[in-house]
This record gives sequence, structure tokens and C-alpha cells, in this order.
Amino acid sequence: MKELLVIKIGGNIIDDDKALASFLEDFASVNTDKILVHGGGKLATRLSTSLGIETKMEDGRRVTDEETIKVVTMAYAGWINKNIVAKLQAKGCNALGLCGADASVIPAVKRPVGKIDYGWVGDIESKNVNINFLSGLINQNITPVFAPVSSDGSGNLLNINADTIARTIAEAMSTEFETRLIYCFEKRGLLMNVEDDSTLINEINAGKVEELKQYGVITAGMLPKIDNALGAISGGVSEVVIGHAAHIKHIAQKQKGYGTYITA
Amino acid sequence: MKELLVIKIGGNIIDDDKALASFLEDFASVNTDKILVHGGGKLATRLSTSLGIETKMEDGRRVTDEETIKVVTMAYAGWINKNIVAKLQAKGCNALGLCGADASVIPAVKRPVGKIDYGWVGDIESKNVNINFLSGLINQNITPVFAPVSSDGSGNLLNINADTIARTIAEAMSTEFETRLIYCFEKRGLLMNVEDDSTLINEINAGKVEELKQYGVITAGMLPKIDNALGAISGGVSEVVIGHAAHIKHIAQKQKGYGTYITA
Repeated sequence: MKELLVIKIGGNIIDDDKALASFLEDFASVNTDKILVHGGGKLATRLSTSLGIETKMEDGRRVTDEETIKVVTMAYAGWINKNIVAKLQAKGCNALGLCGADASVIPAVKRPVGKIDYGWVGDIESKNVNINFLSGLINQNITPVFAPVSSDGSGNLLNINADTIARTIAEAMSTEFETRLIYCFEKRGLLMNVEDDSTLINEINAGKVEELKQYGVITAGMLPKIDNALGAISGGVSEVVIGHAAHIKHIAQKQKGYGTYITA
Repeated sequence: MKELLVIKIGGNIIDDDKALASFLEDFASVNTDKILVHGGGKLATRLSTSLGIETKMEDGRRVTDEETIKVVTMAYAGWINKNIVAKLQAKGCNALGLCGADASVIPAVKRPVGKIDYGWVGDIESKNVNINFLSGLINQNITPVFAPVSSDGSGNLLNINADTIARTIAEAMSTEFETRLIYCFEKRGLLMNVEDDSTLINEINAGKVEELKQYGVITAGMLPKIDNALGAISGGVSEVVIGHAAHIKHIAQKQKGYGTYITA
């Protein structure tokens, strides 16, 4: 099977023009077939504030009311997505911006109201991803760039967690590609001592996660990423790596000493 | 050749939830291959105002500074585009939202500074449209939905006139399809007496345009549309119609008494 990279970048990179430009240049130069997924919560929060809309978070997730889904769609699928596409095109990468609603590529379901009502927030499943459409793009040498927004089948847009989009796409595509999922953030990977870059953990597995939680290596903020990573492995993804956005070229080439590899 | 409709809707429809829902239902039911192009200036203006950004217009075109291109991209390629896509998907139309930057489908050039500096405004040419990519989507029964934004080759997003996008796509696609270009707005077409719906002009040609300008039938605001229409005809488009958004089904079926037909 051909290799496919599903790479996710978060808000800290997107929010830093220089870091973003440098990442996109590196990303464009990676010669493997690839899909980019981006977040962008910081711009959404700033835009909400400017518009006088209160930002409410519950368990790290944005409560998305009628006004907030507009803000989120504008920020994620509008400026951030198209800015990344334009920048990649300038570097010779034939990028195409998408949200999950486009060509129903990742249909979503509004999250049922439980203890918390998240509003216009959606959940997705890898079995519903339109693999043929994505494969068709990749076979045309097009690089899909995903904003974390989708829709239900009834015309409503939904806010989707970007880590989950990356995982779900990676799982779905693993039936046709040898898929590697790479979560990029602003650290080298999991560090035994978060202050010391030399303490990179090269590899962890499900068994080790509990232990690392006790040591405080895996913080509450990292947990959803780790859960997605372990889930992706059970879902058929060949390899999950958590690493620094500035190291994407090294990670793409599987160079030792870059990123933490998560295995079964 | 197969028939293709390129349909453009403007801000007055987009801004009216009920009119938009009704239009999209009709549009989804049209059985011909089709491409939708939308404007959305009113939301961009409202968003600018809310964010304290001054809206400057010159000759009916938005002067697009550094902040305004962000607003325009968020409004057009973000909320309006994805809201339309989600609504069409709900009606069984397999819509895919695009801007000109995506897959470099309509590369643009920043408008040179002349008497007026329009800022991040772009111009486009039909010879640069990626016809193969669009045909590929249409052959997959996907309906492209275009936001009036594109980019230069250097990573900058550009604000493009939506009427011009519609015309440019229609011209480009006319090499592969029998292409009809339909401009939808809030009137039945050109009216001899703008107050009287029964005075619809069924057909005009280039020669008649001058005459109608003298009668005041073609107002300054309508002129760019008429110029685009005449240009499209010389550019190979089979037919251009200007008509009411609420009549799209009738116009698509070429029913008499709906819309003004512009001929060579």
C-alpha cells in the first residue's frame, strides 16, 4: 500500500505567522501523499470577543451556540483554511480546502444533550468518511486541507474537534493507504520533564499511558490527543506520532529522535 | 455537448434566510449539471462594522485592505459558502464549496494600482480556469459552489467580483459544455418600467444596450452585469439570462416569460 500522512496542526502554530509560514514550507516539501487538518480556536475566541460573543468552554470543548457556529465557521473554514491553501499553493503544493460538509466527505451527527449541552457540536465516525472522494483527490496529486467544521444531514453546520477529524480521516484512509497520523504541537513530543527537551520519550504504548499519567508526563490537556492516538492505532492506523511542528520534515522521514511514537 | 448551468446569486437573496432556503431548494431540484456562484457583500459589510473596520467602496467595488480581506474571506468562503453547502446537502444536492485558490481552480492577479488602489482585489481570466478539475467534479455529480475569493501565486488572498467569477467560469466551461449563465437577483429581469413587473424585456442584444441606457432601463448598478453578460456571449457562452432568484426552476427549463435573455 502507498503511504499517506495525516498531519494535524493546532492553534499555537496557526496563530504565529512566522511559525505557520515555516511549517507550511516544510509541509509543502514533504513528498509523500498527505492531508492537513488544522484547528484555530484562538482566532475564533478573539473574533467572538471582538463581536461581543461570550466564549464558553466545558471540558476543553467550545460550547457552540447559534452565533458561535457562525464565528467558528468564519474563522476555521474561512480565513484560516483559505490562508493556508493560498500559502501552500505558493509553495507548489496543490492544496484544496474542505470542511466535512463539502461533498459530504465527513458527515457528522449533532452531539446529544447530556449533562452538558454543547450546542452545535458534532461527532463523526470513520465508517462515514467518503474515502473514494478523498482518494480521488490524492490520486490527482491534490492535498486536502481540512477545517474542523462539518454538518448534519439537515443543513446545520457543526463544530468538530480537529484532533478527532485527523484521527477519523486517518482511520478511514487506512483501508487504502498505509496511514501515519502526526499530531504537531509546540513541543518535541512527550517529555519526561516538560522543561527539558532532552527528555523526549521515543515511544509509548497503551500500557505505559497509565504510568505516565501518574508521573504527570501526560497532563489533562494532552489526554484527548493520547486517547485519539491510541484509538487510531486500534482503528488501523499504522503509526501515530506526536511531535514539534518545526520537525515535520524529520518526522515525515521517520528520523530517530523526533517525536513520540504511540504504538498498540 | 452536455448542458451546464452557471448560476450566480447576489447578496439580497443570501441575506434573506427564507428567500435563500427557497432558492436553494429550487436550485437543488434542477436536474442539469450546475455550478453556483455567490456574493455576500452585505454580511461582509455588517461584519466589518461590528469589528470597527471602515467599509470603503469605489465604483461599486470594495476597497480591500489587510483587515478587509480577512473579513471578506471569513464571510464569503466561511459562513456563506459552508452554510449554502450544508443546506444543499440537506436537499440531496452534492455540493462542494470552493474558492478560486482551492486546487488553483481560478488563479487571480492582484489588480494593479491605477487611479484607485483597490488593495487586495484580484482579476481573473477564463484561460486560467482549471477546467479539468471542475469537469472532474461535475462528472462525479458534485455541484461546485464558489465564494468570490481567490489568490495570486504568492500566498495572498484576493477579493474577486462574484459576477465576474460566474462569467469567467461560464466562458471557460463553454469549451466542454453547452454553458448557460444565469444571473439571479430580486427582479424578474430587465423591466422597461422598473415599477411594473409586466414590462419584462424578453431579450436584448449589444445594439439595444445603448438605447436602454438612454431610457434609464439599464441603470449604473446593472451595467457591470450587462457588460459581463455581453462579454460572456462573445466568450463562447451559449446563453445569458438575468432573472428573479425565485424563478430559477422556470429559467433552467427555458420557460417563456421568465428572465431577460442577452444575445450577441
